[in-house]
Amino acid sequence: MTAPSLDVVALGSAIVDVLTTAQDADLDARGLVKGTMALVDDMRADELYAGMGPAVEASGGSAANTMAGVASFGGSAAFIGKVRDDQLGEVFAHDIRAVGVSYATAPATAGPATARCLVFVTPDAQRTMTTYLGAATGLGPHDVDPAVVASARYTYLEGYLWDPPEAISALRLAISAASGAGRQVALSLSDPFCVDRHREDFLELIDDHVDVLFANEVEIMSLFEVSSLADAFDAVRKRGRCKLAAITLGPLGSAVVTPDGVTERPAARVDAVVDTTGAGDLYAAGFLHGLASGADLVQCADRGSLAAAEVISHVGARPRVPLASLLEAGAG
Amino acid sequence: MTAPSLDVVALGSAIVDVLTTAQDADLDARGLVKGTMALVDDMRADELYAGMGPAVEASGGSAANTMAGVASFGGSAAFIGKVRDDQLGEVFAHDIRAVGVSYATAPATAGPATARCLVFVTPDAQRTMTTYLGAATGLGPHDVDPAVVASARYTYLEGYLWDPPEAISALRLAISAASGAGRQVALSLSDPFCVDRHREDFLELIDDHVDVLFANEVEIMSLFEVSSLADAFDAVRKRGRCKLAAITLGPLGSAVVTPDGVTERPAARVDAVVDTTGAGDLYAAGFLHGLASGADLVQCADRGSLAAAEVISHVGARPRVPLASLLEAGAG
Repeated sequence: MTAPSLDVVALGSAIVDVLTTAQDADLDARGLVKGTMALVDDMRADELYAGMGPAVEASGGSAANTMAGVASFGGSAAFIGKVRDDQLGEVFAHDIRAVGVSYATAPATAGPATARCLVFVTPDAQRTMTTYLGAATGLGPHDVDPAVVASARYTYLEGYLWDPPEAISALRLAISAASGAGRQVALSLSDPFCVDRHREDFLELIDDHVDVLFANEVEIMSLFEVSSLADAFDAVRKRGRCKLAAITLGPLGSAVVTPDGVTERPAARVDAVVDTTGAGDLYAAGFLHGLASGADLVQCADRGSLAAAEVISHVGARPRVPLASLLEAGAG
Repeated sequence: MTAPSLDVVALGSAIVDVLTTAQDADLDARGLVKGTMALVDDMRADELYAGMGPAVEASGGSAANTMAGVASFGGSAAFIGKVRDDQLGEVFAHDIRAVGVSYATAPATAGPATARCLVFVTPDAQRTMTTYLGAATGLGPHDVDPAVVASARYTYLEGYLWDPPEAISALRLAISAASGAGRQVALSLSDPFCVDRHREDFLELIDDHVDVLFANEVEIMSLFEVSSLADAFDAVRKRGRCKLAAITLGPLGSAVVTPDGVTERPAARVDAVVDTTGAGDLYAAGFLHGLASGADLVQCADRGSLAAAEVISHVGARPRVPLASLLEAGAG
């Protein structure tokens, strides 16, 4: 087995975020549930966009944000995800390459447009998302180079990718390439509704293929259909293969769950929380960068919190300052 | 003559800004002159974009920003400018309508893509712009509805629109519709290089058609090829038709020049200047809104400064908070 040449490769939805500010009443009027992600078709996306205030566009996508974070820490990262050969597709490809992530997935030359996520940021800094998956659903096994996956210490999978049925064979191929090379597989549960849609698949993955699990408190309780965090921690410690879960707890920080026990770590300090979009994605970035660089689990959690704190202090889901410089300056 | 139903209609380039942060050395390496706008072709735009850091996209365009500002003050505004029927064209149309500006120009169904402006914001909050005009050059007389122009108290023209030769017949038609209805014509000089390119046209306009002139100190000195502001003020007071010039002076505020004299007004207070993109555009918005609502010239200048102060306190060239609420709260 050759030494890994990449820290992390991720498979995920390639999405451009369309960010606007909104009031709670705007969410209610549109039938949106605050803090969640809803999938919409192109007609509903157009209708929501037409009624939306002025917006800014910025590259997003959960696992893509995580890879941007790993690169921002100075790690080596690659991303696999599908755009169309349109203007938003060019924006996505430009931005992820501009932060140093390797991105070689060929854009679709026909079919639906590049995926968009309409993000409504309320004054309490929460984000409510509606996603039109568009071209992102076209990810297939031909987009996965097993040699690239085999070259990465960690293969990171976004739970959202279980939504488009076509993407599952790509995910299976990536898991098999990672396992075959003796690498680690990480999974993010993405969203409580996503967990509801794919609970059986996720449980099977955790038993058979996943080494590192990322979730927030709502997602992990939903996964095991329990009503307390303690029960969820117990449940994850009893699963098959998965020996490490990193659970984010919002302002309370995070918990690292292993067969040996549960270690809670506080959140990093933030002067003012502006927009929580990307908090979980960037926590995963810091944690994975820690793992890939040989940090202990407490350092991994703190590095995750450091990255999450940076991204929630401004609008948008990717770091504005190099995370490597924050790490050098102290925390994590 | 019927009463005007619109405060301002503007003709300008319909542009989506692509904003990134950069260092002075990045500008030097690309041969860019800080604080100015350079026109580029699509190949040069692609080359600059490829070497640019991660960016966010937000609707821009000088006169379009001004109309967004007029609407944000609660004024009635319309915009005429050309996009392509592509994704960035949809973004432009969505954003300007979302702030309440009437926008009815049909998108081009063929030809170059929607205009983009790559904006490099340096740590001193200055912005350096390179613009690919694309579809914006396709503005023609068929895009100008003389009845709409005749219905507006002010017709506001962006100096940049003299760059695409095809747009000049649209401008001439708008000027003639405004004059025929006894309305006022306003002109912004846009940029010192733009003044260099079109000095004779601009001087002729000021003599024959323009009632209100907007410029900054560099542009007005360049227009008259003089080396002091006092000489520039003298020169503008001696021109033919134009009896009112509003000259922005950066942190020093602005000067209102009429045949009766020069009135200087201080800038509005800003806690931290983040990005000067749109400062002149929003000054014009406040000034025009003041004129259209019967404010005196000191109030017009202060309203302009209020709007400029809001827009330079954050990234991006359009207001983030309703300017009407700032106006009610005190200044202007």
